[in-house]
Amino acid sequence: MSRTRIGILGCAGRMGRTLIAEVLAQSDRAELAGGVDQPASPALGKPILDPVSGADTGLVVGSDPHALFAISDVVIDFTCPTASVMHAQEAARTGTALIIGTTGLAAHEDAEVARASAGTAIVQAANFSLGVNLLVALTEQVSRLLNDDFDVEVLEMHHRMKVDAPSGTALALGKAAAAGRGVDLEAVADRVRDGITGARTRGHIGFATLRGGNVVGDHTVIFAADNERIELSHKAGDRAIFARGAVAAALWAHGKPAGQYGMNDVLGFTKA
Amino acid sequence: MSRTRIGILGCAGRMGRTLIAEVLAQSDRAELAGGVDQPASPALGKPILDPVSGADTGLVVGSDPHALFAISDVVIDFTCPTASVMHAQEAARTGTALIIGTTGLAAHEDAEVARASAGTAIVQAANFSLGVNLLVALTEQVSRLLNDDFDVEVLEMHHRMKVDAPSGTALALGKAAAAGRGVDLEAVADRVRDGITGARTRGHIGFATLRGGNVVGDHTVIFAADNERIELSHKAGDRAIFARGAVAAALWAHGKPAGQYGMNDVLGFTKA
Amino acid sequence: MSRTRIGILGCAGRMGRTLIAEVLAQSDRAELAGGVDQPASPALGKPILDPVSGADTGLVVGSDPHALFAISDVVIDFTCPTASVMHAQEAARTGTALIIGTTGLAAHEDAEVARASAGTAIVQAANFSLGVNLLVALTEQVSRLLNDDFDVEVLEMHHRMKVDAPSGTALALGKAAAAGRGVDLEAVADRVRDGITGARTRGHIGFATLRGGNVVGDHTVIFAADNERIELSHKAGDRAIFARGAVAAALWAHGKPAGQYGMNDVLGFTKA
Amino acid sequence: MSRTRIGILGCAGRMGRTLIAEVLAQSDRAELAGGVDQPASPALGKPILDPVSGADTGLVVGSDPHALFAISDVVIDFTCPTASVMHAQEAARTGTALIIGTTGLAAHEDAEVARASAGTAIVQAANFSLGVNLLVALTEQVSRLLNDDFDVEVLEMHHRMKVDAPSGTALALGKAAAAGRGVDLEAVADRVRDGITGARTRGHIGFATLRGGNVVGDHTVIFAADNERIELSHKAGDRAIFARGAVAAALWAHGKPAGQYGMNDVLGFTKA
Repeated sequence: MSRTRIGILGCAGRMGRTLIAEVLAQSDRAELAGGVDQPASPALGKPILDPVSGADTGLVVGSDPHALFAISDVVIDFTCPTASVMHAQEAARTGTALIIGTTGLAAHEDAEVARASAGTAIVQAANFSLGVNLLVALTEQVSRLLNDDFDVEVLEMHHRMKVDAPSGTALALGKAAAAGRGVDLEAVADRVRDGITGARTRGHIGFATLRGGNVVGDHTVIFAADNERIELSHKAGDRAIFARGAVAAALWAHGKPAGQYGMNDVLGFTKA
Repeated sequence: MSRTRIGILGCAGRMGRTLIAEVLAQSDRAELAGGVDQPASPALGKPILDPVSGADTGLVVGSDPHALFAISDVVIDFTCPTASVMHAQEAARTGTALIIGTTGLAAHEDAEVARASAGTAIVQAANFSLGVNLLVALTEQVSRLLNDDFDVEVLEMHHRMKVDAPSGTALALGKAAAAGRGVDLEAVADRVRDGITGARTRGHIGFATLRGGNVVGDHTVIFAADNERIELSHKAGDRAIFARGAVAAALWAHGKPAGQYGMNDVLGFTKA
Repeated sequence: MSRTRIGILGCAGRMGRTLIAEVLAQSDRAELAGGVDQPASPALGKPILDPVSGADTGLVVGSDPHALFAISDVVIDFTCPTASVMHAQEAARTGTALIIGTTGLAAHEDAEVARASAGTAIVQAANFSLGVNLLVALTEQVSRLLNDDFDVEVLEMHHRMKVDAPSGTALALGKAAAAGRGVDLEAVADRVRDGITGARTRGHIGFATLRGGNVVGDHTVIFAADNERIELSHKAGDRAIFARGAVAAALWAHGKPAGQYGMNDVLGFTKA
Repeated sequence: MSRTRIGILGCAGRMGRTLIAEVLAQSDRAELAGGVDQPASPALGKPILDPVSGADTGLVVGSDPHALFAISDVVIDFTCPTASVMHAQEAARTGTALIIGTTGLAAHEDAEVARASAGTAIVQAANFSLGVNLLVALTEQVSRLLNDDFDVEVLEMHHRMKVDAPSGTALALGKAAAAGRGVDLEAVADRVRDGITGARTRGHIGFATLRGGNVVGDHTVIFAADNERIELSHKAGDRAIFARGAVAAALWAHGKPAGQYGMNDVLGFTKA
């Protein structure tokens, strides 16, 4: 079976280089088709090196997305909203599958991506970690199976530089737990507890936030009933897992029919 | 809606009393129909008290299973294999649903129970903890979704008096993980590690055993890939959770068609 | 060596019976001298039973503390502030060691106890769990050894009925961490985090609170630096540990010189 | 106060570069005096760059340890046993403090290092992680404070490539626990459990080993009594913590009297 040819947009940036390393590491299934960076990038025309070994890949950093789509089976895009919309249209035109990790798209930009997915397979996600996506799906499933004898608590720890709390992933976990129970998170969230709080309200979903060191991201969802607790955890050790998930999505998307997909599709995670 | 009338076999024993407490605690949905103990029990004829409050339930310990089946919607049976087979036959005769928590049935006894299930709904399980059953099901599911980039490890801790290792539940978790990957646990189990072991073999499933204090039972399944770990845990704080699961099974079984069921059915846990 | 004769004040209450069970369980070192309850107690004159086996101890519930002090080497007192002050004076008069677990004493009552300790050994503590006291002492010690490259976070989980947050023990752990660094907890406590918090401030001590099920009390102090974390945890499974600590204090106090002592003395925990 | 001038032996290797990064990161207290590599190193004469930013430090890789000792307050040595012995002698001659992280020294080589420490301050350790050394010291201390109502268990997890079990650090933790109780680890170690083991023996110390992913090293010591557990953990996220500990040792050693020191001295950790 031939390998999937993968092109990388934004290849000279930090995430781009992590993606290149991951494609090269999956050389039995994936092949680096090429890399493109933005027109003003100082890296243009320079050789693309293996970020791990420093070995020359024989490719140079290009500036033409059009050419990259032409030689790729799948293209991975962690760039910016405006660029991602154009890339989606180019993907549809050429029938090349596209993986979009760019976040912060406005509603009309998301709509453009959705329209483009009529012409090719597009996988879009806010977080490409296999593990985090799995944890979110499991949380919804377990929450649906257990009644509110089980109190749900979401605990997370991140590095000391993180400026918001709870983390976006913690909130996504809370939303998944709420969805599993058919309620709205806003109506049941206990975001903090301090002082005389009174007893916990049945059915509420609590959050607790730890900050320290350079922790990449630990998340635990606790389902606590009398005399037993179920805990589902994910511990991230390195941002490379986001690249791993994006490349897994690329391998999965190759040959899929046109349409809009998420990481649940990639994981084959269907709802119970 | 009327409450489910639940009868308890072996009602004077330790598990029987825990079951009575649980039925009484669920008084909005369940009603204690009666309790029966073995003919030689010194408790026969004595009042059945609420094990928590000491209050008199107005019932006395009986010795006639036949009469108990006649007045119950569902009967719960944690007794012994020989008795359980007779109870299954009585359940089929009367159309009363039956919950069997007795373990150690021989193959021919299991076959008798299966035959009886043609006549009524019978739920049979080795472990009635909702949480443990959920953990087993999740483990199989997650194992099926993740490839062997994720090393699977099963960790358990039990009290210092436990005489076997790994625990039966740990082995059940290992079997579930192996089943999820379509392999046989025996072929891939690393039950212990000591001395110069060499590197871990891809696809193997490891076990680790802790013993100490009076821990009722903690189990964790770890899926460890490079830079991320998913952990699924269950922590039992009291044996009452087994009674809770059995009563949940009784409430679920009331009105179900004849057939053989397990805790996965009670939990509504279907395979993804 | 003869056994320590221990008397129990408030012997008919919940804590009193747990103390009796613990004394009887330590029968190689301890002997139950007797038990006294308040004058209005319906238990007066009734036999004192072993709370575990139900066996008769041959003793009856008395009403005269004076008589109890006369026949005891050490008396344990979990009663009320007014009574504890009188007991301390009686202890001083008779030279009997006293263990006080009563909380909520006013300043003048504490002063009375201090005065009484000139006449006998008195051990007083807000929490008699060996483990929690050890955790508090370790936290102060570790905090003194590590600089603020290590961010300190205190995490606790308690049952759903708990009405205050963080727990008193969590605050005691925070105070110990602050003391280890020579700062005041009030000045550095991050009691909650929600929304846009900005980066964590160096030297601050964070708290996070989980509530659910019937968890007796789990506490973890995290020291998180770049690339490493030290975590010190205590998990309580049953309130019996408070009785165990009080009886350990009683065995320790027997024969000690007059003076005021705390659980650190009982544990032999000296500051590094 | 002037900064401590630190020289790095083996500066072009992986650990050497990590040490350089750590010295540069501590620029308020430490200054990079210079770096030397072995005579055959291809790096000789090349500029020493900041491994993080790539910035030029203005220094070049030298080959003369003699010259390095002359310009340094403290020298850090992660090389090989033969070289380390010579470095210890040179340190004694010049009165320069020395930090030795080299492992595998033979008894006579250790004796040479001990002799050299008559002439200068030498800190020698098998593991320079602050956290691991602290965990070992705490384990001995806690073990001495608690009797064998508390069962001691040592749990560790490392990456899938690790070839031995339990880890050296886990064994060091077990030795510390045994020392705290005044027993010999060999006599009480339960290194594995499998099959029908019988109940746990009072006073024994158990080990459990997990392997998976690329985990750098997690260690937990559990003290489990009835109804309570104390757990002391260390989680390593990156090998940089060993460099951090070595540089902390260098800053501490500057100006200390001649003598042999360990990480306990650096940490100021005295036994309770």
